[in-house]
Amino acid sequence: MTTSYSAYPELLARLRRIHVLGTLTGVLGWDEQVNLPPGAAARRGEQLSLLAELTHAEATAPALGAALANCEAAGLAGEVALVVAAARRDYDRAVKLPVELVAEKARLSSEAYHAWAAARAARDFPAFAPFLEKHLALARREAELLGYGGRPYDLAIDRHDPGLDAVRVGALFAELRAGLVPLVRRIDARVQLRGERPVALRGFDIEAQRRVARMVTARLGFDYDRGRLDVSLHPFCEGTGDDVRLTTRFDPDNPLDSLYSSIHEAGHGLYEQGLPSVHAGTALGVAAGLAVHESQSRLWENQVARSRAFWTWLEPEYRAAFSGSLAGVTADALHAAVNEVAPGGLIRVDADEVHYNLHILLRFELEKRLFAGDLAVADLPQAWDDLSGELLGRRPAHAGEGVLQDVHWSGGAFGYFPSYALGNMIAAQLWGAARAALPGLEHDFARGEFGRLLGWLRGTVHAQGRREDAFALTRRATGAELGAGALLEYLNERYGREVG
Amino acid sequence: MTTSYSAYPELLARLRRIHVLGTLTGVLGWDEQVNLPPGAAARRGEQLSLLAELTHAEATAPALGAALANCEAAGLAGEVALVVAAARRDYDRAVKLPVELVAEKARLSSEAYHAWAAARAARDFPAFAPFLEKHLALARREAELLGYGGRPYDLAIDRHDPGLDAVRVGALFAELRAGLVPLVRRIDARVQLRGERPVALRGFDIEAQRRVARMVTARLGFDYDRGRLDVSLHPFCEGTGDDVRLTTRFDPDNPLDSLYSSIHEAGHGLYEQGLPSVHAGTALGVAAGLAVHESQSRLWENQVARSRAFWTWLEPEYRAAFSGSLAGVTADALHAAVNEVAPGGLIRVDADEVHYNLHILLRFELEKRLFAGDLAVADLPQAWDDLSGELLGRRPAHAGEGVLQDVHWSGGAFGYFPSYALGNMIAAQLWGAARAALPGLEHDFARGEFGRLLGWLRGTVHAQGRREDAFALTRRATGAELGAGALLEYLNERYGREVG
Repeated sequence: MTTSYSAYPELLARLRRIHVLGTLTGVLGWDEQVNLPPGAAARRGEQLSLLAELTHAEATAPALGAALANCEAAGLAGEVALVVAAARRDYDRAVKLPVELVAEKARLSSEAYHAWAAARAARDFPAFAPFLEKHLALARREAELLGYGGRPYDLAIDRHDPGLDAVRVGALFAELRAGLVPLVRRIDARVQLRGERPVALRGFDIEAQRRVARMVTARLGFDYDRGRLDVSLHPFCEGTGDDVRLTTRFDPDNPLDSLYSSIHEAGHGLYEQGLPSVHAGTALGVAAGLAVHESQSRLWENQVARSRAFWTWLEPEYRAAFSGSLAGVTADALHAAVNEVAPGGLIRVDADEVHYNLHILLRFELEKRLFAGDLAVADLPQAWDDLSGELLGRRPAHAGEGVLQDVHWSGGAFGYFPSYALGNMIAAQLWGAARAALPGLEHDFARGEFGRLLGWLRGTVHAQGRREDAFALTRRATGAELGAGALLEYLNERYGREVG
Repeated sequence: MTTSYSAYPELLARLRRIHVLGTLTGVLGWDEQVNLPPGAAARRGEQLSLLAELTHAEATAPALGAALANCEAAGLAGEVALVVAAARRDYDRAVKLPVELVAEKARLSSEAYHAWAAARAARDFPAFAPFLEKHLALARREAELLGYGGRPYDLAIDRHDPGLDAVRVGALFAELRAGLVPLVRRIDARVQLRGERPVALRGFDIEAQRRVARMVTARLGFDYDRGRLDVSLHPFCEGTGDDVRLTTRFDPDNPLDSLYSSIHEAGHGLYEQGLPSVHAGTALGVAAGLAVHESQSRLWENQVARSRAFWTWLEPEYRAAFSGSLAGVTADALHAAVNEVAPGGLIRVDADEVHYNLHILLRFELEKRLFAGDLAVADLPQAWDDLSGELLGRRPAHAGEGVLQDVHWSGGAFGYFPSYALGNMIAAQLWGAARAALPGLEHDFARGEFGRLLGWLRGTVHAQGRREDAFALTRRATGAELGAGALLEYLNERYGREVG
């Protein structure tokens, strides 16, 4: 037992170094998408590759292994044991990966990002295909090294959401699909029958959009003393604790895109700012996984910010910010635009809530086939288009609105997409639990007050770190098993009946 | 000799890693001054400290020592020998420094930067003094460890300008002071006698200033595919090769500040973009030193961009960009504003060419006394104010326009200031040589063409890397020894006679 007093602090110090390197890598990744001069792509790849190598060296340091062994020998209990067990799992994985593979993946991700951006602009899938092939080969090799030889896709999913695998996701998605497809068909038919077309919002000043996005996200609780809002091609949230950076993008003719992207990323940011900083770098100080992460962004974006109550508060401020551009647009028309349902949309990030999860079902299916070896990269565009026709009712006209639309694969982030739909499910369940726990929440929103909801999420989700996986967290927080029911009910309630 | 084939590539690979870590540190430093949320200062300090530690580990790696020894044993000659000798010098220094000291200096620099910014805003020197004390103690300890025990200031100077020391700088500055003080007095008297007051330039649109700064720097040759222009409190240039980042700052009532800061930093940036990238990370691919670096920024800022010929080109474009704000300002008035001489100015970065070097003589004198132990940190404000009265003819009203005005000491960058005045001397000498080598240069400028001058600087200075120190480079490039003569002559020619 004598070693326990020094072993645990030593373990924490070692984990801290890995954490700090992770935050460094994060800032570099943010910079790559926000600031990097076009000619500096190769250099950034070299930087990130070396950083990955150095991080790997820290993650496999013999001193870390010794600290872990000492902690385990000391028989530590409670939360400390949870930290040790998670660190053991990460360490055992890291030591099985050769540093060359780690550095190669980092370099490839950086190169592939720029190749993807160019290929998407040119609508040229073959230009990107070799990078995807390389990423898939690396993912397979990783799976073999980590003992996931026959199940590389399970590893990919587990990477983002500890405790999940393709079978469990597949079962949840089957339940989702069974309820969602008929619901979507019914809503689509109504939209088409009635010819529902939202009002066109055009000529919204970019600087005013920026001010509104910042004002709204600050009002939700995002702390700009510990964060930023910038512009990138693809909105994202990077960072944790005291340095959380959101991005969005601005289009004068699509002001709701910048607003809802900002709110979505702020939902991620609120989670990261709410993690217990004293535990940074350990399992107690990191998010539970991507599905729970996405539940936070989605809950703020959809359940909160698309509600009537939210717009009761925002509308006067929104009109004041864009007076000229909103003249003649009624409150009902504005609210209808916020909750637009657009059948036949092909772009995931532009999809409405009703159709969004269909885009995820598509990607999950294709990733499964790719990893199972049932689908070759060369045949991916065709498969994408076919499945798009089947699920979304429309085939893309080109790769830019089809297989090349998402950034994820350029970073080798396979198994990431499922977390979006799982996050939607969790968000709907959390929303139900929050409304039950906090009566009159809509009245808060109508006054621009979000502190009670944020406080509940802070306690129920943010402060918990990675104590639980998505299943256990959902069970504890909502009293029900993770499933599609609450999401389907929510979508039916908001979009399935007569919409105002 | 058999080892030479593998030893040199091994050495280059090792140096490359150190170089890449340096570029990483550079981006983080840039981000700290351009983007960092206020609450993230401590985190950035921790990141930079760990990065300094990892860089130190690379710089002292036994494998690097072995590669060096093998290269030396192989008796390599020519340029390769120069690379080996410079790497040996750096390695021998690095191994004498304990990693704790290196990490501590990085952490301190980050913390002290934020403390300085707050202290300057509050005009509160005592709030910053403890950080300065710590930096001085670290610098003394470093000097002892590196065998500069009795001469810590020499080490500080040598850090920035290999080959220079306090005695050599002191001799050059004595020559400069002897000629400059009477010249300044004469010009000041004329300005005051005639009541020369430049026209007020007010209400210049910030976005238009940004466009002009970018247009002008691009026209000088700065490559924006491999660089950026952003905003920071204190303008600077960070990076090398394919990722060079300039900063400036914008004030509607001081448009020439943003323009000349941008041109100044672009001068640094042109040097960094012009270094031979194939040699990046070796002595052949790095700038000769800070004095030569400053010669590049100053030559573009002053000799080129304050000339009549330059404004012959720029004036129509400048008027088109700021039409309303320049109505009623004659060409002569604008040119007088560009070449304003303002006696009694206290802020170095706002100083005109005539007075600028006096600010440097002041700082050199105080740094010498601090390092010699003749001046305590607590007495520094008094000494600053006294010397300011003596050299500049005016005492600061508060620390913000006195001892706290510069960022350098917060980063422990002692011995840095002399390079500014040395750079002015070198710039004047290079300017003379360029004009002799390139007849009709002013006609180029009047047409907005700067390619011949840039080409000459690329060949004469940029492509040379660190083959020579400031003395040898000046001698080769200009045929004369480094001295104050050319600068005094240039200042006398431009400002000492009747100014148009």
